[in-house]
Amino acid sequence: MERTASDQIFDAATRLFAEKGFAGVSLQDVAETSGAEESELLRLFGSREKLYEAVLESQFSNYAVSLGAAFEGSEGPVTRVELFARAMCDFHKQAPYFFPLYYRELLTPSPYFEPIVLKKIRHVAYMSDNNIAKGIQKGHFRHGVNPANATMVMAGMFHYYFLANRLVGTLLPESITDEEFFSQAVKVFLNGLKKEE
Amino acid sequence: MERTASDQIFDAATRLFAEKGFAGVSLQDVAETSGAEESELLRLFGSREKLYEAVLESQFSNYAVSLGAAFEGSEGPVTRVELFARAMCDFHKQAPYFFPLYYRELLTPSPYFEPIVLKKIRHVAYMSDNNIAKGIQKGHFRHGVNPANATMVMAGMFHYYFLANRLVGTLLPESITDEEFFSQAVKVFLNGLKKEE
Repeated sequence: MERTASDQIFDAATRLFAEKGFAGVSLQDVAETSGAEESELLRLFGSREKLYEAVLESQFSNYAVSLGAAFEGSEGPVTRVELFARAMCDFHKQAPYFFPLYYRELLTPSPYFEPIVLKKIRHVAYMSDNNIAKGIQKGHFRHGVNPANATMVMAGMFHYYFLANRLVGTLLPESITDEEFFSQAVKVFLNGLKKEE
Repeated sequence: MERTASDQIFDAATRLFAEKGFAGVSLQDVAETSGAEESELLRLFGSREKLYEAVLESQFSNYAVSLGAAFEGSEGPVTRVELFARAMCDFHKQAPYFFPLYYRELLTPSPYFEPIVLKKIRHVAYMSDNNIAKGIQKGHFRHGVNPANATMVMAGMFHYYFLANRLVGTLLPESITDEEFFSQAVKVFLNGLKKEE
């Protein structure tokens, strides 16, 4: 399928906003990178603000759908945590601009932070929170762990890895693959939550 | 002790760079915020670049000293992980601008990323890495965990918490204190690394 002019503009905008932040990207930059005319950008997207909003909406909706899927099947709480880790790893490969966009919004929130970023992140966090609460109830995870804290620990170990990914090669002597990291991280996490026999 | 003009400039610059990033702060902004003349800034610090470099150097040296201390006593590997978590929590309170500065450098590295940011982060990471390797050797932690991955998991769960801190109140129903989070996170982590009996 051929990419339309609109797709090309959208892709260029996504990359530029991720690399330079909203304040660092003009409509002219997007026009130059995508090979479109500024007038066409305006006709298609309305304004720089609306283009940025559309990029965030697309990225964060994909995040909520991809990650949310881990909690929607009939699997038990432990398997759901594993599916969540797998989904994070896959999402990272498929959406390399999501994490820079997310971190830039955390550092310098735009007017779309609450209605888009927070709303979608919260959606996924609640699902994880409920899953861990259910795991405690069913006796898979230990009592005394606040599900909110556990969700934050899990999100943190995955999210930070993506951002610091560029450091891993130089930061630590071993060469580590995404798969190895995710598999070990989820093992440490699940083992840490496990109820003592 | 009275704060000198130089201290006041330095404090204002630290806050501004953390809030707006290097590209978003002019010498005039620092002058206005600190109440000094631009000419005095130049006399004291040389240039905007050198002022930024001095801010990073100070913040990342403090980080390396504060966090490194956790690994310098005669304590065993498990206690050192607990001391590290405690030091992270304390450092956050004492240096609220460190984390935004760090994340901004990860997103948009300056020329000081390698010689300052990476150098200091790597220093602390190696200490943690060695500590976990020693814990495995001594039989406190399970075999099969790559110490580099374990360090990344630990750093991730703490680092992300600080950045996402603003979200915690609205993201999750419970109100969680830093101390509660740190105590539970370190328990999950240590329990996850623990050798099976």
